[in-house]
Amino acid sequence: MKPVRIALLGCGTVGEGVVRLLRSNAAMFERKLGAPLELAGVADRSLKPIPSLGLDAKLITRDSDKLIERDDVDIVAELFGGYEPARSLILKAIAAGKDVVTANKALLAEHGEEIFRAADKAGLAVGFEASVGGGVPIMRTLREALAGDRQRAVYGIVNGTCNSILSMMTEGGSEFRDALAEAQREGLAEADPTLDIAYARELGYTIKLLAIAKDDDGAIEARVHPTMIPAKHLLASVSGSFNAIYIHGEALGSSMYFGRGAGQMPTATAVMADVIEIARHRMAGARGGAHALGYPVTWIKRARVKPMDDVVCEYYLRFMAQDKPGVLGGIASVLGRNGISIASVIQQGRGVETTVPVIMRTHEARERNLKRALKSIAKLHMVDGSPAFIRIEERL
Amino acid sequence: MKPVRIALLGCGTVGEGVVRLLRSNAAMFERKLGAPLELAGVADRSLKPIPSLGLDAKLITRDSDKLIERDDVDIVAELFGGYEPARSLILKAIAAGKDVVTANKALLAEHGEEIFRAADKAGLAVGFEASVGGGVPIMRTLREALAGDRQRAVYGIVNGTCNSILSMMTEGGSEFRDALAEAQREGLAEADPTLDIAYARELGYTIKLLAIAKDDDGAIEARVHPTMIPAKHLLASVSGSFNAIYIHGEALGSSMYFGRGAGQMPTATAVMADVIEIARHRMAGARGGAHALGYPVTWIKRARVKPMDDVVCEYYLRFMAQDKPGVLGGIASVLGRNGISIASVIQQGRGVETTVPVIMRTHEARERNLKRALKSIAKLHMVDGSPAFIRIEERL
Repeated sequence: MKPVRIALLGCGTVGEGVVRLLRSNAAMFERKLGAPLELAGVADRSLKPIPSLGLDAKLITRDSDKLIERDDVDIVAELFGGYEPARSLILKAIAAGKDVVTANKALLAEHGEEIFRAADKAGLAVGFEASVGGGVPIMRTLREALAGDRQRAVYGIVNGTCNSILSMMTEGGSEFRDALAEAQREGLAEADPTLDIAYARELGYTIKLLAIAKDDDGAIEARVHPTMIPAKHLLASVSGSFNAIYIHGEALGSSMYFGRGAGQMPTATAVMADVIEIARHRMAGARGGAHALGYPVTWIKRARVKPMDDVVCEYYLRFMAQDKPGVLGGIASVLGRNGISIASVIQQGRGVETTVPVIMRTHEARERNLKRALKSIAKLHMVDGSPAFIRIEERL
Repeated sequence: MKPVRIALLGCGTVGEGVVRLLRSNAAMFERKLGAPLELAGVADRSLKPIPSLGLDAKLITRDSDKLIERDDVDIVAELFGGYEPARSLILKAIAAGKDVVTANKALLAEHGEEIFRAADKAGLAVGFEASVGGGVPIMRTLREALAGDRQRAVYGIVNGTCNSILSMMTEGGSEFRDALAEAQREGLAEADPTLDIAYARELGYTIKLLAIAKDDDGAIEARVHPTMIPAKHLLASVSGSFNAIYIHGEALGSSMYFGRGAGQMPTATAVMADVIEIARHRMAGARGGAHALGYPVTWIKRARVKPMDDVVCEYYLRFMAQDKPGVLGGIASVLGRNGISIASVIQQGRGVETTVPVIMRTHEARERNLKRALKSIAKLHMVDGSPAFIRIEERL
């Protein structure tokens, strides 16, 4: 059977991983496809031989354009990153009738529409599983596994580095204390950055950096921020550098997808998932219909993004205030005037006249009202500095 | 555009869910496919009208065979369950050139090879996402998302009912205590079924009913049993009736897929995922290549299943023994003679001559040796009844 042939644009970390998988799993891929899956060539500016890969020098070129246009190339995997020449090369590949795979999140965020439109028009595929969540197959899950349902909300831990730091802060191990002391010496960290994390635990929450998207009957909420979630929630158990995406579907209810969000081999498996899907598609003689976003581009409706001020959620609030009678009343009355009601309060006076944290959890409130209230509270003479707030997702 | 048309065989719980989704998401499906997705007919022996579905009486028939063979049917969804007539109807559908979707795990376990072979030969698809793990998209994840990698081990919580019971036993809420008292009155439950669960916690484990498959260089381990896993492991956080499948891939490392394992709408979304994939395939004019198992059937190698006696793992052991000097030594020496070494022991003598639990955790041992040792230990006069053992998965 005629082989399916791949051209790699870029042979950095992920590219090396792809070469490794193509080599070590060659026999398995041939059995899966009923045809060999071959590396047609690698375009890399450095032209640096990678001895551990044993890559045939004849396969390496500096000329991406020429490689893309070769008749024996079926799939082009763009792993350069950045906007250019990545964008132009992908458009050139589509024009030359090649299916495309990319791990380039920045490029798709900026030029996705142009690229998807060109691919749709040409009846070609653009696989971009590797661009989000590393080895977590969230793109094909949304496009295929969950295609029968309407997604109401998506909550993602998609920044492994931040999640590691938050996990370390929560666990408070020696590695973290050392790093914190260093950062404090350099003036990068505040006196006690774990204060809110400790109160979060006391209130039954864990703090995670979440990317949140919600469909509020056509208006899309899209936000990324540190979020308090119930400590017993499955997402709260995702620690270290892992990624996880938690989805609430109208018919399915809750589901979660968890795995390595970065790294050479996890990202390479995501690239290969797209390559194999496209190869299968080619073997089946499919034409068109390979809509990267799950819809023909022309059928996609532009949604309204809800302004951040219109978001409604519960809030954790921390005020550093003087330990005097009337402080709580002062704060509470400003909140009340702004239509914000308080669900619970932690106030631990030390009995001496100094600044103490006043912690509050609110009921649902509109962001606009909260910000207005915080601005007023910051002006109260009993309250120091600027109040801290963290959004709570109680019912995710 | 010409519609894609589905025939439902069976309109029980899941069938009703599929009809609901086809109706409520009709506009979305048409936008995704670029063509309407329509219900061609429903075969149901009861012919009972379901008023809440508002199903047109003309769509309902008792004659499955006739419905399958209709020219305007593209996809047949078998939701009868059981072996017959499900098997014959699926084979008939394939012979008539229809793609097939089924939620029938029992049928595929027994007759899968015959069905997949027929479909492969005809170049047709058999979607069976709904047959395993309800709404957890584990089949397409293994077949597609993880296609670039070799899976070393798969650990599944795939029995929501058992997982609920184990969660209740661990949490020990009032609902569980009432159910337990009832079961004990009826002689169905032992005096303290939570004993091992309490010790599991003391040793840092949680007990889960796991379906485990491992690839030991060609020999497949396949087993289902209550398993102790580290309490801090993500799988240990999966409680209630949810399902989760945890996979260890050679290149990807760990990943997990979590969701509703049963229920009308979750299972219906899994059926619809297959229906939409097949519809997209049809729209793209793909022929053949739709290998349900990820490989052309003829390329699948038959693997050797490792006998249970050859499985190697760590074990939790519980002996009910007399609280006398020499008991521990007696048990330990039998284990030693069988090549089993002890990692830790919990022995809490009560100081009075009665039966007390002796708890041990072993290092890795071969199942055959363990069973031989337990048989010998059961014969010791200081040990009562038959020893209990639970397999531990320490490094999952």
